[in-house]
Amino acid sequence: MERVYNFSAGPSMMPLPVLERAQRDLLCYPGAGCSVMEMSHRSPAFEAIIERAEADLRALCAIPDSYAVLFLQGGATTQFSMIPMNLVDRAGTAAYVETDEFAKKAIREAARWCNAVTVASSADKKFSYIPEVRAEDLPQNAAYLHITVNNTLFGTQYHRLPQLGVPLVGDLSSAMLGQLYDIEDFVLIYAGAQKNMGPAGVTVVVLRRDLLRDLPEEVPTMLDYKVQVAGRSMHNTPPCWGIYMTGLMLDWILREGGVEEMARRNNEKSGLLYEFLDNSTFYTPTARPQDRSNMNITFTLPDEALSDLFAKGAAARGLINLKGHRLVGGIRANVYNAMPIEGVRALLAYMKDFEMEHRMP
Amino acid sequence: MERVYNFSAGPSMMPLPVLERAQRDLLCYPGAGCSVMEMSHRSPAFEAIIERAEADLRALCAIPDSYAVLFLQGGATTQFSMIPMNLVDRAGTAAYVETDEFAKKAIREAARWCNAVTVASSADKKFSYIPEVRAEDLPQNAAYLHITVNNTLFGTQYHRLPQLGVPLVGDLSSAMLGQLYDIEDFVLIYAGAQKNMGPAGVTVVVLRRDLLRDLPEEVPTMLDYKVQVAGRSMHNTPPCWGIYMTGLMLDWILREGGVEEMARRNNEKSGLLYEFLDNSTFYTPTARPQDRSNMNITFTLPDEALSDLFAKGAAARGLINLKGHRLVGGIRANVYNAMPIEGVRALLAYMKDFEMEHRMP
Repeated sequence: MERVYNFSAGPSMMPLPVLERAQRDLLCYPGAGCSVMEMSHRSPAFEAIIERAEADLRALCAIPDSYAVLFLQGGATTQFSMIPMNLVDRAGTAAYVETDEFAKKAIREAARWCNAVTVASSADKKFSYIPEVRAEDLPQNAAYLHITVNNTLFGTQYHRLPQLGVPLVGDLSSAMLGQLYDIEDFVLIYAGAQKNMGPAGVTVVVLRRDLLRDLPEEVPTMLDYKVQVAGRSMHNTPPCWGIYMTGLMLDWILREGGVEEMARRNNEKSGLLYEFLDNSTFYTPTARPQDRSNMNITFTLPDEALSDLFAKGAAARGLINLKGHRLVGGIRANVYNAMPIEGVRALLAYMKDFEMEHRMP
Repeated sequence: MERVYNFSAGPSMMPLPVLERAQRDLLCYPGAGCSVMEMSHRSPAFEAIIERAEADLRALCAIPDSYAVLFLQGGATTQFSMIPMNLVDRAGTAAYVETDEFAKKAIREAARWCNAVTVASSADKKFSYIPEVRAEDLPQNAAYLHITVNNTLFGTQYHRLPQLGVPLVGDLSSAMLGQLYDIEDFVLIYAGAQKNMGPAGVTVVVLRRDLLRDLPEEVPTMLDYKVQVAGRSMHNTPPCWGIYMTGLMLDWILREGGVEEMARRNNEKSGLLYEFLDNSTFYTPTARPQDRSNMNITFTLPDEALSDLFAKGAAARGLINLKGHRLVGGIRANVYNAMPIEGVRALLAYMKDFEMEHRMP
């Protein structure tokens, strides 16, 4: 069977050279005499792997020493809890922008711990845009303002960050390494690796060291950033294989030209799709133009019943996972770092053919 | 470079046929057109992988339908928190047996949440034995009694479970699938996969469904068993590759003859080592004979300074990770399911040679 073009929102495509290198060394990592999956995490070989991954991430994102880098487990969903538990007292307040289902989950989770205030929302228009946060809506005592930088379900993305004097926390799950952001605009960012930089099971957290503090006793040790930083992501056995694969991805991104080049490619890929969509009378792009994501392109067909047919026909051509999220419907093409432009061209060709076949006479 | 015999406590050796199968299908999982690392966790292909893994684990361990099976992230250390948070009220009491550093960690973590009572300990003799729990020491109101079934640091193992009428919770991290236990003797067991059944980054939890209940709001959603059971381990994106590798290991164990056969092999391997140690005037086994682990064999040399030399000489022969845990010293040979008997024979040959070279005249 041939490899397909995988438009999944995550876990998503990985570059073939990365997979081939993992395959080559799977039985025996060079110099180690065993697979990375069999390595003691306290071995020099694994120490070198995780240190290299951190160094490459720091180089790629220009992360200063004043920020710690963590490779954790539990996904962004675990961060939804860790962030308020580590940054806010139980009686304290945190501010959130509601831009999609994941932002809603982050808010619900924070509300278990502290006073979580939604200061702006785009729920009124099906999350099709990035809402402005007005300074007067921001509680004076908010410990931070949380934004979801790229919204995979609805295909929206921050292209200008809110600068309101409140420390910014960013869910960069699908934005990190795929678009240019300045880490120093945030006090903390986090990202599930399974979009632009690795397989599922690794979550990258980058946080300013001056945030670290002692926590109330009911916070589990594993959810304590201070403990995780002190243990250099190895307070307990880390997800070694996932960190290794993330390292291979980071190395690949560096060799290909870094985040700037990834952003250029993603802008090019999404640009081709948006240009086609904007000129179509058959397909309708759903995100507000100035808030469009450069990696998650959402659109609808004249009739929602056609979406299933569209996705099935695409899969038959080796273009898989194009159906929109089950909560949203429509079609969603995710063109993360590893999606080659040939995949986008194949999708465009299919879209033209599908339109020909299904356009109303 | 040749593959070595890896005596690590975990992550530990995996069977070559398992690694070869993973290697073969790494670029393109049969029928999927992509790597398991690239698969959407909502895809039929991944659904089949996780369902098969659960079915195989149920078959291997005779897990009845009244128990739920979870594949989670965060390691046993996360379970140290989840268990009290899910099973005890904050004002409630849980009982613990202190048999090693991991048991101590479990106790410390429970103490953050509830009244955690240590009802027996072998700290008086460097954790070299499994202490008896006396019924009169067990608080009447204990929600459960927690034991660490196999103690990797000190090489001790429960061969008879405490049956005192209090629900039993077991850390089976290094015991599961390597020794025979009856799941129904426990209300909950948990195990990091990276010893006998997979790579790091997956934690198996098996719990009686009637334990599931609503939790206080300060418990993070990700730490809620009820949520994880409802989501069939996919409340958020699971560690897909780790679950896949665990599935391959479970399949291998089934084909090799199941847990009974694994226990027989582990008993044989450890038996050879214990027999040699018991007849040695040079090496001293450290665990009390009736409490010895069938997978973690601990011993000392006449002089602790020789331990380093022993481990280095072993590594030069392709026998790696034999140094005892940094908190314990001495030597530790871990002979989990994937360690072939040839590895143990090679270790015995080395032990004889080392003794010849270093025996006092």
